[in-house]
Amino acid sequence: MKELQDRIRRDGRVLAGGILKVDDFLNVRIDPVLMDHIGKEFARLFEKDKVTMVLTIEASGIAPAYSTALALDVPLVFAKKARSANLGQGDVYSARVRSFTYGRDYDILVPSRFITSADRVLIIDDFLANGFAARGLNEIIHEAGAETAGVGVCIAKCFQPGMKLLEEEGLHVEALAAIEAMDENGIVFREMKSGEEK
Amino acid sequence: MKELQDRIRRDGRVLAGGILKVDDFLNVRIDPVLMDHIGKEFARLFEKDKVTMVLTIEASGIAPAYSTALALDVPLVFAKKARSANLGQGDVYSARVRSFTYGRDYDILVPSRFITSADRVLIIDDFLANGFAARGLNEIIHEAGAETAGVGVCIAKCFQPGMKLLEEEGLHVEALAAIEAMDENGIVFREMKSGEEK
Repeated sequence: MKELQDRIRRDGRVLAGGILKVDDFLNVRIDPVLMDHIGKEFARLFEKDKVTMVLTIEASGIAPAYSTALALDVPLVFAKKARSANLGQGDVYSARVRSFTYGRDYDILVPSRFITSADRVLIIDDFLANGFAARGLNEIIHEAGAETAGVGVCIAKCFQPGMKLLEEEGLHVEALAAIEAMDENGIVFREMKSGEEK
Repeated sequence: MKELQDRIRRDGRVLAGGILKVDDFLNVRIDPVLMDHIGKEFARLFEKDKVTMVLTIEASGIAPAYSTALALDVPLVFAKKARSANLGQGDVYSARVRSFTYGRDYDILVPSRFITSADRVLIIDDFLANGFAARGLNEIIHEAGAETAGVGVCIAKCFQPGMKLLEEEGLHVEALAAIEAMDENGIVFREMKSGEEK
C-alpha cells in the first residue's frame, strides 16, 4: 500500500535493535484517514475469504481491526492482555504470547461466546515481527473450532521469522508494508504480491 | 442516541454493584456500524467546538475515539496505562487515575509531542461513571497548556458523580446514553439535551 509505505518513509523512525517507531501516525497518534484507507485495503485483499469476524489484540490492533471490520461489515473482537489468565474459567479462550517489545510472556483472552465453530476469522494487527501475537490468536481460533480466514498486518518485518512461520501454516498473509531491510539510512520494502491497489 | 439506547436495552446486561456489561457490541465485541454512527453523532454534537484532536485511553476508548476522529477529520491520540509512570522522562505527560472496575490506581501517559498549547482537545471514552479517566485526561490537557473542547462518552451512569463533576468544571459534556437508574428490571435513560439527532 503505497500511501502507508510513503508515510513510513516520511514519519517513521528506525531505532537500534530492529525497532521501527510509527507512533506519530499509526499506533499512538492515529491518522484516521490513513487508517480508514488501511481498513478498505484489507477488505479488498480478503474480500474472497468469506470473513465472518475480525480478531485483534488490544491496544494498537484495535484501530486497523475496526476500520477493516467496518469495511467488511462484520463484527470485531479484541483479545485482552493479562499477566496471568484465570484458567479456571471455562468461558474464555486463552493463549500464551511472548512480547517482542517487552521480552516477557502474557496471556491473551477472548470470551468464548464471541467465536463459534462457524466463524471464519480474519486476524488484523499493526505489526508482524516474530508472529507471536498472530500465532496466539490463531491458536484461540483453533481452540474455538473456527477457521482462520487470513492474517492482515499493517507492517511486517520480513527479516524476522513471523511472516514465514504463518505462511508455512498455510495461512493467507497480507502485509500493507513488508519491510525487507531497514537501518538509519532508509527502508527497503518488498514488492506487493496482491496486484494493483484500487 | 436512540440507536445506542435501544441496543443497550436489547443486549446490555445489568449486574449487581452498578455494573452494566455492554461487551457484546461496544467494548469487547464491537459492532462497527453502530460505532461508526457513534462517531458521526459525537462529531455532530461537538461540531462548533473547534476540535483539533481527539484524546482517549486504551483500550475500550479507542474504537469510539477513532470513529469520532474520522468524522471530525482530526488526529486521535490514545493514552497508555502503566502501573507506574517513568516520571523521570520529560517527554510524557502523565496523570494518576483510579479504576472503577479494578479498584486500584494506575498512571496514564501521553507523549508530550502529541499535544501542543494550540490544541483544542475532545476527550472520548466508552463509559463515564466516577469520571476518574476523563479527569485524568483533562489534567494532561491542562499540563500541555491546551484546552479541553469537550467530553463525549457513549454511556454515562448519572447516578455516579463523574458527569456532575466534569460539568462543574465548566466542561461541555455529552453522553449518547445517559442512565438515570438501572436494575435487573430495566434501565431509565435521561432525555437527550442536545436536540434532535440527524
